[in-house]
Amino acid sequence: MISPQKALKIILSHAHPFGLEKIDTAKALGCVLAENIRSDIDIPPFNRCAMDGFAMNSQDPSKVLKVIEDIPAGKVPQKGIKPGQCARIMTGAMLPQGADKVVKIENTEPLGADRVRITAQDKKNHVAHIGEDVRRGQIVLKKGRRIRPQEVAMLATVGRTKVAIYRRPKVAVISTGSELVESRQKPQPGQIRNSNSSMLLAQLKKRGIDGEYLGIAKDRFAETQRLVNEGLAQADVLLLSGGVSVGDYDFVRDVLRNCGIKILFDRVAIQPGKPTVFGVKGKKWVFGLPGNPVSVLIVFELLVGPAIDKAAGCKYQSEFFKVRLLQDFQRQDAKRELYYPVKIKPGGAMPLEYHGSAHMQALIQADGIMKIKRGVKHLREGAVIDVRPI
Amino acid sequence: MISPQKALKIILSHAHPFGLEKIDTAKALGCVLAENIRSDIDIPPFNRCAMDGFAMNSQDPSKVLKVIEDIPAGKVPQKGIKPGQCARIMTGAMLPQGADKVVKIENTEPLGADRVRITAQDKKNHVAHIGEDVRRGQIVLKKGRRIRPQEVAMLATVGRTKVAIYRRPKVAVISTGSELVESRQKPQPGQIRNSNSSMLLAQLKKRGIDGEYLGIAKDRFAETQRLVNEGLAQADVLLLSGGVSVGDYDFVRDVLRNCGIKILFDRVAIQPGKPTVFGVKGKKWVFGLPGNPVSVLIVFELLVGPAIDKAAGCKYQSEFFKVRLLQDFQRQDAKRELYYPVKIKPGGAMPLEYHGSAHMQALIQADGIMKIKRGVKHLREGAVIDVRPI
Repeated sequence: MISPQKALKIILSHAHPFGLEKIDTAKALGCVLAENIRSDIDIPPFNRCAMDGFAMNSQDPSKVLKVIEDIPAGKVPQKGIKPGQCARIMTGAMLPQGADKVVKIENTEPLGADRVRITAQDKKNHVAHIGEDVRRGQIVLKKGRRIRPQEVAMLATVGRTKVAIYRRPKVAVISTGSELVESRQKPQPGQIRNSNSSMLLAQLKKRGIDGEYLGIAKDRFAETQRLVNEGLAQADVLLLSGGVSVGDYDFVRDVLRNCGIKILFDRVAIQPGKPTVFGVKGKKWVFGLPGNPVSVLIVFELLVGPAIDKAAGCKYQSEFFKVRLLQDFQRQDAKRELYYPVKIKPGGAMPLEYHGSAHMQALIQADGIMKIKRGVKHLREGAVIDVRPI
Repeated sequence: MISPQKALKIILSHAHPFGLEKIDTAKALGCVLAENIRSDIDIPPFNRCAMDGFAMNSQDPSKVLKVIEDIPAGKVPQKGIKPGQCARIMTGAMLPQGADKVVKIENTEPLGADRVRITAQDKKNHVAHIGEDVRRGQIVLKKGRRIRPQEVAMLATVGRTKVAIYRRPKVAVISTGSELVESRQKPQPGQIRNSNSSMLLAQLKKRGIDGEYLGIAKDRFAETQRLVNEGLAQADVLLLSGGVSVGDYDFVRDVLRNCGIKILFDRVAIQPGKPTVFGVKGKKWVFGLPGNPVSVLIVFELLVGPAIDKAAGCKYQSEFFKVRLLQDFQRQDAKRELYYPVKIKPGGAMPLEYHGSAHMQALIQADGIMKIKRGVKHLREGAVIDVRPI
């Protein structure tokens, strides 16, 4: 049985990008750039007026200026500015030749139709100079950067309607268990509805992945083997839930081995989630998650999510932060690292009532999980603990 | 000119749900429930075995038991358990009549094919009792709750393949400015590419909304009026950018008035973002955002996003948190509340080089914005400031 830290290390050492993909920038939000983006223009692309007013030369001492042209944004000025002259100019417009300053409209008064008096001066010239922010050819966004709305804007500015991103893995989801029926069905005595697959698909969706649901393996060995082979044929990553606890153990391990998967670990010192299995076949990964929903949610977040993020080009970053425990906490058995549902409050984290890994209601009440290290049985109110949102 | 707090108050007082919608649970991630969800079953739906082992009666003192049945998960037990008897049972299976306890497989040893010896006892009975977590008919998810992966699992468990959610508003996006060309085009002298629309669509996408881009209004008054009317006909919320600064001011206000929109404010004491306009027409909202991209991003996050979230059923929650300023900061003019790009580090927030609201590169470097109150010109390193991710 290995530690969760060791398990994550093994997984991440096998996590690699599944290649690049060129996609429309409009669809790239949340993806990671797989190329450096250079600007095809200077930004600003010309000396740009930053304030509505009058464009003039800063060396011109005249207090009354003749207005020789109107320059709205988008127009190329037709005339040069000489001493005693100015042009009426709008924010975003190109400065005319000979002008290097804009006097704000508030600091002027009109004198008839084509003259203006300067009534005050401020220190700023209200001009954004050509190439002041970015030079043509300069890298504006580096490979490895995650695309947020501002990166979308930058891509639009430099004319990139398509970009290379790290392709997100294709993920297939299988539930095992003869007791399972689909959510739309009414369970018969002894049966329950399959909730793990919908949850895993939602967890994938949060990471921008539309997972493929392959169904429930009821006739467990043969059916599971058929679905595992189907999944391996079409997906990069395969997620199974159920069929990995003590009595079931050899069954899923044997199915995976039969399908040519090399198992890298099959027990993790984590509660819930002990029977988690991880294996690889070539570049493909297979996770055998436990059957109980709380285990599935937590093991996905702790072990599967980071691998998927890494494949999509993101660096691993722990989501845990330190807060105070708001109530004494104790447990009987401290052989494994414990993840336990909590409510995150302004002052810290409050442990919730929790009946174990089948108790979904606890995760509905929770907005976080706290981590309690192996060997730690008691924690006092006020102790500093690690918590992450869930 | 009103404060940003007042502006937000006005906006939120006009923000209302745009009605309900029944959608597939598989598509409901991130939406807010518009109905209470009751369970159609007890959870667990039967006395459920929580551990692979042997089901027996806890009052039975026998150390050697006859195994009368195998009960895998999903099977209805055929026999009752009498003293001296047990059934081999798997995790998730239904407990047979007469049994109220499971002895873990690790605490037993086989005696031939159909008998088993109990070698140790633990305190737990390893049975999850019918209805222990949820009673049939009980509310499992309340109206107003945001749907996360665990809520998706709960909906699957209680057989809800469709749910009522607060419908997200339809949002239309228009850019104004004769200097603008589409991102796919090469700008001519005096022109720049339209980046605001792509950014707004990405900001909407982050909130689960596929906005509708209506295009660039080049011939400003008539074209803008045509697009505003088009937007009002098809969308609940209209976002314009550009055309609201001093010289342009009357133009957008007049267009909006011409289209029957009641303007509720048209100046906010916020930097960047002063010329922001907000109006309503019946139940529809219109935001006139400034033209510079940094202003657009920030005003959307501070004023538009909260309204959209409220329409989608979410409570307003400030995303600002307190951190330390990592470097002295000063500004000349403190007439408005300032939002300024920062890098968030473990020890606090570091102000970035920032040339003003046209300087997108600063928002690319930034991962947060800090808020500096009106009237505050100087802040010392170590001062506590409000920051939010961006």
